Amino acid sequence: MHLYHVQDKTVVVVDILRATSCMTTAFAHGIESITPFAKLEDCLGKKPLGFFTAGERDGKKVEGFDLGNSPFEYMDPKLKGKKIAFTTTNGTQAIEKSRTAKEVIIGSFLNLSSVVRYLLFGKNNILIVCAGWKGKVNLEDTLFAGAVVDKLKDFIEPDCDAPLAAQHLYNLAKDDMVKFLSTSSHVKRLAKLNIHKDIAFCLTPDQYQVVPVLKNGLLTA
Amino acid sequence: MHLYHVQDKTVVVVDILRATSCMTTAFAHGIESITPFAKLEDCLGKKPLGFFTAGERDGKKVEGFDLGNSPFEYMDPKLKGKKIAFTTTNGTQAIEKSRTAKEVIIGSFLNLSSVVRYLLFGKNNILIVCAGWKGKVNLEDTLFAGAVVDKLKDFIEPDCDAPLAAQHLYNLAKDDMVKFLSTSSHVKRLAKLNIHKDIAFCLTPDQYQVVPVLKNGLLTA
Repeated sequence: MHLYHVQDKTVVVVDILRATSCMTTAFAHGIESITPFAKLEDCLGKKPLGFFTAGERDGKKVEGFDLGNSPFEYMDPKLKGKKIAFTTTNGTQAIEKSRTAKEVIIGSFLNLSSVVRYLLFGKNNILIVCAGWKGKVNLEDTLFAGAVVDKLKDFIEPDCDAPLAAQHLYNLAKDDMVKFLSTSSHVKRLAKLNIHKDIAFCLTPDQYQVVPVLKNGLLTA
Repeated sequence: MHLYHVQDKTVVVVDILRATSCMTTAFAHGIESITPFAKLEDCLGKKPLGFFTAGERDGKKVEGFDLGNSPFEYMDPKLKGKKIAFTTTNGTQAIEKSRTAKEVIIGSFLNLSSVVRYLLFGKNNILIVCAGWKGKVNLEDTLFAGAVVDKLKDFIEPDCDAPLAAQHLYNLAKDDMVKFLSTSSHVKRLAKLNIHKDIAFCLTPDQYQVVPVLKNGLLTA
């Protein structure tokens, strides 16, 4: 991120497995707001204030937190109208680093077409921030970026070859993304945690029509 | 690069178009040494000391320098046994950033198999530093990284998904790399300078069997 000026851009934060997929799912099921935190203790501090706490480190739910990092947890009707304080290994760190952007939105395959429409009708240049794994590249976030580039290709001009590389990878993977990702580092890491159902769901495009937007440190739909 | 500890690694610096292709060509034609400089003025300062000066900025030869950035210039017999002081937009900057590595070598398609053999029989972990364009991603350097990964795939374990992504891109491109790269940012930029012959040559694997190695700030074969 240090290579880019974000002040004039709409930043799309992406953490497909699984933070931004969870956030999208939560808003599609009527959550009022999500406050992202980079630090565990800041997140937990919101619990006495009536927030549900959602936390993950190294792919696992954190002890003492109400919710983990599976999108299926966020379909619970009891969360409707509630506020969530959210922290994850990579996703919320990427949001933290994007705070100086003109606009920050949340992207996942689950709301892919809604994100694309939002970007197409917006006025700003676009930076897709792939959260990756502890600062390093992962394939699934890159594939999402490639899907966005592929859908916007007739309307945008890339600033370097990264969007083009992501688009090539997406076109190579799109017919069976689960299979394509089976050799990726993060999927192998998560497979050990036995969450194949989560992985398949997080790679399913266009389940929801919602775009979470960050304003004053708060995500709303 | 700031994400990686290079102290225990062999770093392969790659700037396919055209710095590391030129360096490889120069050594294959009997150059004694190349001293890389990040700054133009430091490079030019070596001229009175009997060095040939080679310089490029934004793809163009720098005024007052003996040599530019076309590999064909480095086939000249008059360069045999001589010393070159070298500075380019991206390649020599990448070498500068790699100086704290355990070992730094120079890679290009022209010496691909020699680099692969060198890495295979070396003892260190490997980091391939794609110089890119002014710090941003370009496809041709990524393709070279993918070619190395593809040849070493039975012997190495990737540390993140970037090697895997590069390998996928290389396999997609390898049958016609010139065509594959025709939409890339840097090739479009260079095409304006009318150097199609350079581009085709720099994408030709295994023309030379030489591995330039950096020691005490000096590249030798």
